[in-house]
Amino acid sequence: MLVLSVVLASVAPPIAGPIDPVARVILALAVVLVGAKLGGEIAERLGQPAVLGELLAGILLGNLALVGVSWVESIPADATIDVLAKLGAVLLLFEVGLESTVGDIMKVGGRAFTVATLGVITPWVLGWGVGALFLPHSSPYVHAFLGAALTATSVGITARVLNDLGRAQSPEARVILGAAVIDDVMGLVILAGITSVISTADRGTGVSYLDLAFVFGKALVFLVGALVAGRALSPRLFGLAGRLRGQGQGILLITALVVCFLLAYVASAVGLAPIVGAYAAGLVLEEAHYVELVGRSGRSLQDLVRPIATFLVPVFFVVMGMRVRLQTFAHPDILGLAGLLTIAAIVGKQACALGGLGAPLNKLAIGIGMIPRGEVGLIFANLGLGLTLHGEPVVSQGIYSAVVIMVVLTALITPPALTWCFRRAAAEPVVAWQGVVVPALAAAAGDGGADGAPHRFLWSAYRQAQPWLSASRAGRAAAPDPPQKARPPGARPPLKSA
Amino acid sequence: MLVLSVVLASVAPPIAGPIDPVARVILALAVVLVGAKLGGEIAERLGQPAVLGELLAGILLGNLALVGVSWVESIPADATIDVLAKLGAVLLLFEVGLESTVGDIMKVGGRAFTVATLGVITPWVLGWGVGALFLPHSSPYVHAFLGAALTATSVGITARVLNDLGRAQSPEARVILGAAVIDDVMGLVILAGITSVISTADRGTGVSYLDLAFVFGKALVFLVGALVAGRALSPRLFGLAGRLRGQGQGILLITALVVCFLLAYVASAVGLAPIVGAYAAGLVLEEAHYVELVGRSGRSLQDLVRPIATFLVPVFFVVMGMRVRLQTFAHPDILGLAGLLTIAAIVGKQACALGGLGAPLNKLAIGIGMIPRGEVGLIFANLGLGLTLHGEPVVSQGIYSAVVIMVVLTALITPPALTWCFRRAAAEPVVAWQGVVVPALAAAAGDGGADGAPHRFLWSAYRQAQPWLSASRAGRAAAPDPPQKARPPGARPPLKSA
Repeated sequence: MLVLSVVLASVAPPIAGPIDPVARVILALAVVLVGAKLGGEIAERLGQPAVLGELLAGILLGNLALVGVSWVESIPADATIDVLAKLGAVLLLFEVGLESTVGDIMKVGGRAFTVATLGVITPWVLGWGVGALFLPHSSPYVHAFLGAALTATSVGITARVLNDLGRAQSPEARVILGAAVIDDVMGLVILAGITSVISTADRGTGVSYLDLAFVFGKALVFLVGALVAGRALSPRLFGLAGRLRGQGQGILLITALVVCFLLAYVASAVGLAPIVGAYAAGLVLEEAHYVELVGRSGRSLQDLVRPIATFLVPVFFVVMGMRVRLQTFAHPDILGLAGLLTIAAIVGKQACALGGLGAPLNKLAIGIGMIPRGEVGLIFANLGLGLTLHGEPVVSQGIYSAVVIMVVLTALITPPALTWCFRRAAAEPVVAWQGVVVPALAAAAGDGGADGAPHRFLWSAYRQAQPWLSASRAGRAAAPDPPQKARPPGARPPLKSA
Repeated sequence: MLVLSVVLASVAPPIAGPIDPVARVILALAVVLVGAKLGGEIAERLGQPAVLGELLAGILLGNLALVGVSWVESIPADATIDVLAKLGAVLLLFEVGLESTVGDIMKVGGRAFTVATLGVITPWVLGWGVGALFLPHSSPYVHAFLGAALTATSVGITARVLNDLGRAQSPEARVILGAAVIDDVMGLVILAGITSVISTADRGTGVSYLDLAFVFGKALVFLVGALVAGRALSPRLFGLAGRLRGQGQGILLITALVVCFLLAYVASAVGLAPIVGAYAAGLVLEEAHYVELVGRSGRSLQDLVRPIATFLVPVFFVVMGMRVRLQTFAHPDILGLAGLLTIAAIVGKQACALGGLGAPLNKLAIGIGMIPRGEVGLIFANLGLGLTLHGEPVVSQGIYSAVVIMVVLTALITPPALTWCFRRAAAEPVVAWQGVVVPALAAAAGDGGADGAPHRFLWSAYRQAQPWLSASRAGRAAAPDPPQKARPPGARPPLKSA
């Protein structure tokens, strides 16, 4: 930490010097990428997905001002870095979308809709309650607004964790991603509605249901249009692109990126998050449409998108972490509200698990996967800062900070929780057979299983055996979890093998 | 053109709407990338490198305001797009640098130094003369300043053409790239020197040779330090990176990008162009240093950098084209000065060919490869706008426009000239053996040689046979060029095979 801060202080760019803007961005990117790799590495060694380490590295970098290094703090305020980070999120969702098709999503469509609806109503009600409890003198509109900030899942974190765990194509992933797209639309409509209600209440005129219907209609037309028309046009587009004579790799990659960027733009133009459009673009492009170009380029589209995502995605997560101001955690009253909001946000989304009933799905994973809040919550909070009701802003600075803390905590909780949840499901058979399987795996790990997979497997078995974990599983049918057996002599948790 | 302008007008982003900044950038990227691919395609079908098409597509897009579409014009003014474009240039030079090693460059070091020196002195003298001719009433300092704007080669265009032609590893390429790095340093020192001379002449104090030595020293220390220390540290760095447990592709790519970004930043901090640092970084990283990581990732570093370059490099060239204002071509007096400056710039760099004497090098290619001017010329012009001598700006708006036109023209001339020059050299043996080789190749092409290479080869043979081409080769020893023979019945130039 000290070494880091000395190093970073010594490379501080001259503030007033004639430094090229590209140089400033490039230095920022170097710092962010180094932070991302080191943070991700530490997280992986602790058995956690890399994204958690990237977020924490971001928090560390963003608060170096506390130890006297202030220039790093300005990185997330740079407009270009901000756009690059968001471009990272767009590419991440595009990459995840590429791994599924529209058909895959249609199969889970009804279920995703149920999950989204449950996951919008419950947090809204709970958040409304938290508002009523903490701000008894405010208008119910303010309480409703606060609750509404909890409705929309920010799917970036979950998508990344699912990617890190190699689960991006699981049925749970499709339900979560589909539901997150749907609740983005719902959150948008609620935002438009509640803003309209509050501003008309402030002015004393009537609510325009027409405006509301228009907002909803635009989003719906976009989604249906993108998926139906996009899927129909994609083969033709690649047919045309295939007639170009340039290098196959360039044509395939650029055509795909252009589709991604255009749909992300249109999504934004109709009021949705750009990442929703990027995900839709990923779904629409199916390998069957461009198999000829893949042959010419010698690389799959995923192979070509991955290096760009490898470069830009960590920027998103580190910058997200850098926006956290640790100072805000020092105010007890804000912390109280933030804590309750966070609980409402987490508990509220567990209703999503009900949407998974009656199918062989990991219900807990669905509930956990829907937890992260992000842009939409922050957009609500930001809008609330500027919205007034009877001369008072709907969202005060204190409430704003509480929403930010809620966003950060839900983002930090999801990666370890989701990892635990998937590994737990995977480890269940191990517990039953552990007398045979675990010692064998331990022996393999002791022989230097270098890729870490046996370690991880053991680690989940090990954690399964911890009393505090089994306590949290009380009331479930399976597994007695004897600690001694689950951690045989040869097995080391990856924590110590670092 | 009409269709294009209607389409682009219809997707115009709402100017005042609450559009996400990332959405604006993403739309701009989509437009730029589509322009780049279509322009590149047309250029390639005409037997020219794709970069020429990208520049021309940029000029077209940037001047759509002339037919009523004005929002596209604002793209190059966007700060983020500007940085992304420059990031593209950085990645291009990094990619080109990766294809050579420090040792390769050292081998041509003395020659590159001679080439650079000749290529700095002659255009400076010629430009000085043009200034004295056109601006007889200005101070000789102004003439010297104008000449100095012609000194430094902007290597982006040449590097890209060499890449497009698959010549990035030729000895000529190494001499050109090495010389361009060296003349960037020389240009920098001249800029510092002349600025200091003019401002002291304006103020009446003495010139600070100490400042001059400091500027030169910094640049020299950077270059030597980057190449020597970088090469020594690179194996250790990758040794450390290899201990990370993450995916091999991510570790290899991110480590390399961080080295590239840091060196580009330091280059900029010492006053050099960031692309000089990026090229140095590419030279320093040798596959031998990270062979273990390549094994783990299953991809070479070039393979991983290429998709990012494929995405960002065309942005640089299209945006460069977009900055051209066709209106400036309408002023005859500016055009006159611009024309003479361009001639001085082109002819001046032909002295570089003398640096290639006594070696089996394509001297003409060296002279042509050094032609393009870019950032440094524009930096000179920009600085001159703000510099005053006896109350007058050293560079007037008219002179500035002339310098911009010179930059554009040298950029546009180089790709076709260099292509012609390399193909002409390559085609020489074909002419001798054409009775055997050409018909065989033509047969192969007729059988559907899909990758286009036989077409290109034939095309160069075909052009070799054109009277207007052989006329330009008058005075050389070889090749009588009978048109009928060089274009046998089965052969079609790619122009018509579209």
